[in-house]
Amino acid sequence: MRTIDWVDGAVELIDQTALPGRLTVLRLTAVEDLVGAIQRLAVRGAPALGVAGALGVALAAHQPGDVAAAVRRLETARPTAVNLARGVRRAAARLPEGADAVLAEALAIRDEEIAASAAMARLGADLLAELCGARPRLLTHCNTGALAAVVGGTALGVVLELHRRDALGAVLASETRPLLQGARLTAWELGRAGVPYRVAVDGAGPFLMARGEVDGVVLGADRICANGDVINKIGTYAHALGARRAGIPFVVVAPESTVDLDTAGGDQVEIEDRGADEVLSYGRTPRPPEGRVSRQPEAGRPGGSETGTEAGRAGGPGGDRPAGPDGADAVNPAFDVTPYELVTAIVTERRVIRLDRGERV
Amino acid sequence: MRTIDWVDGAVELIDQTALPGRLTVLRLTAVEDLVGAIQRLAVRGAPALGVAGALGVALAAHQPGDVAAAVRRLETARPTAVNLARGVRRAAARLPEGADAVLAEALAIRDEEIAASAAMARLGADLLAELCGARPRLLTHCNTGALAAVVGGTALGVVLELHRRDALGAVLASETRPLLQGARLTAWELGRAGVPYRVAVDGAGPFLMARGEVDGVVLGADRICANGDVINKIGTYAHALGARRAGIPFVVVAPESTVDLDTAGGDQVEIEDRGADEVLSYGRTPRPPEGRVSRQPEAGRPGGSETGTEAGRAGGPGGDRPAGPDGADAVNPAFDVTPYELVTAIVTERRVIRLDRGERV
Repeated sequence: MRTIDWVDGAVELIDQTALPGRLTVLRLTAVEDLVGAIQRLAVRGAPALGVAGALGVALAAHQPGDVAAAVRRLETARPTAVNLARGVRRAAARLPEGADAVLAEALAIRDEEIAASAAMARLGADLLAELCGARPRLLTHCNTGALAAVVGGTALGVVLELHRRDALGAVLASETRPLLQGARLTAWELGRAGVPYRVAVDGAGPFLMARGEVDGVVLGADRICANGDVINKIGTYAHALGARRAGIPFVVVAPESTVDLDTAGGDQVEIEDRGADEVLSYGRTPRPPEGRVSRQPEAGRPGGSETGTEAGRAGGPGGDRPAGPDGADAVNPAFDVTPYELVTAIVTERRVIRLDRGERV
Repeated sequence: MRTIDWVDGAVELIDQTALPGRLTVLRLTAVEDLVGAIQRLAVRGAPALGVAGALGVALAAHQPGDVAAAVRRLETARPTAVNLARGVRRAAARLPEGADAVLAEALAIRDEEIAASAAMARLGADLLAELCGARPRLLTHCNTGALAAVVGGTALGVVLELHRRDALGAVLASETRPLLQGARLTAWELGRAGVPYRVAVDGAGPFLMARGEVDGVVLGADRICANGDVINKIGTYAHALGARRAGIPFVVVAPESTVDLDTAGGDQVEIEDRGADEVLSYGRTPRPPEGRVSRQPEAGRPGGSETGTEAGRAGGPGGDRPAGPDGADAVNPAFDVTPYELVTAIVTERRVIRLDRGERV
């Protein structure tokens, strides 16, 4: 199944904040609802964000209202992953041709990401077999499966391809605090695919590598800079340091749509800080800024309206239990920068860039 | 206040699993209850474990029953921190002299740890001022305060000493998954001391160092090997890699009672794996193996008896909400090994060992 798609005039997507407890498909007809879904991470993952942004422009184009304002809201809903702004701009460029042209462009982006997933899986599996030997034991971080990429996935697509080839040794899924995309989403996808796995806390990855329990690290990217620096979920850099020290390959899998030649290096990327609340509460994701989320078509409610039950449930798999004492503060960079010299290779749907051999993006 | 002590014939200790939500003092009169408290981390931290083990032998010595069996149970309650077995053996060596001699030895261990805390705070604060410059912004991991060391603390004692000197720039407390000793316990201690701090997820530490937001890392140890390898809470090694790459000092503060010259290096230490449950549940600590925990003297109940309410509440600050989907598994090493060459210096109550200058333990 596609984890995000255009269905009968609306954007439908799996609510990633509700997994693994509940599989909920949100049906969004208002741009502001989609912006809210993006900001609270109901949809996340660089390729999926590109599709979401483009489909959001298609939504706006098919409705009355200020399309230019909607485009700006979508483009800036989150700052770090390049795919979101890029998908928005690509779809918006077709606005002069009318709403159908915009939708066609958005669906083309969707189809390109679907095709890219399959190509990356093949190229990445070939590379890991070459770099890590037979039946590698792989560590991955965050979620890079179908949830992040419409179908298949980026790094997790490679893991699943190795499993299909009966060439996978083991999978360690780094839990990925604060929102546990590894423990919740990657674990859910691996379980559904029948792939055995173990979860580890983020701090354990480098030690498990040092202890000889990992043959390679494979993960995705939210932006790949012109110099090869990789912007990805917080914790990625620590795993890269561990891989380097352990002498094991560190492989990044991401579509060409994540490669951003306009950004020279990681120090030029705005790293989103998502605030203290995510860190200080257990497993709770923030409420959407706007509560207008519904699961059914909302005929005659073009601006969207409050559906309180779903908005209430959209707050994540559980309650609101603080980890820290009263008055606690937190710093919460959602991404980090892994310098290119720590990256063995980048796999896209078109190429394998061997940074370890001096190849360049 | 002392976080663990001998009070009127029983061991009293702050239940660390209940913090920061509730400040609960457990009064333990049965060795098995103390073993359970140690295993579920109601009391933790290398120096506190040494005191707990010794006081446990004193408990056994003052009661009818198989003292030798009690000693074995205490000695092996947890494997990694050297202080526990060492404290038990030191107290047990006085058994031929009678129960009062055993208690005197246990209280001597307590008093030595109290004195060590004060000395480490001074030496460590001097060293950090020298290594990190004026008003350093420090990152610490896990909990190394009074909860871990009767009073004061090891690494956190140094942080508090810098605060008292008005020479502290900022504190980052790494949350320390899976049981959040940083977000729960260190935050609680810093808050009570009036020291501003921010919590960060464990995976963020190395990136915050790379971004120039940390001037030094200061943390404790569960065992220091003869070659200088440091065994400490999982996540420590990743922070050491980050500190090395960022070119900032990585300082370990631990009493001489944590230095184990009988263990040549980190590869010889048994690393406790605490099982999948801690990783896959949010903020929940395991129920005690035995439920006999009470807050009041249990006159006439020498073997201990069930006090259901407290045993039920002893399960930690919250409920039992799994992070992972059904069928999830996890690997959960509670500690890791930081190779001595990544350690700038070790501070004990007696000396500063500059590993970066080739000095040896």
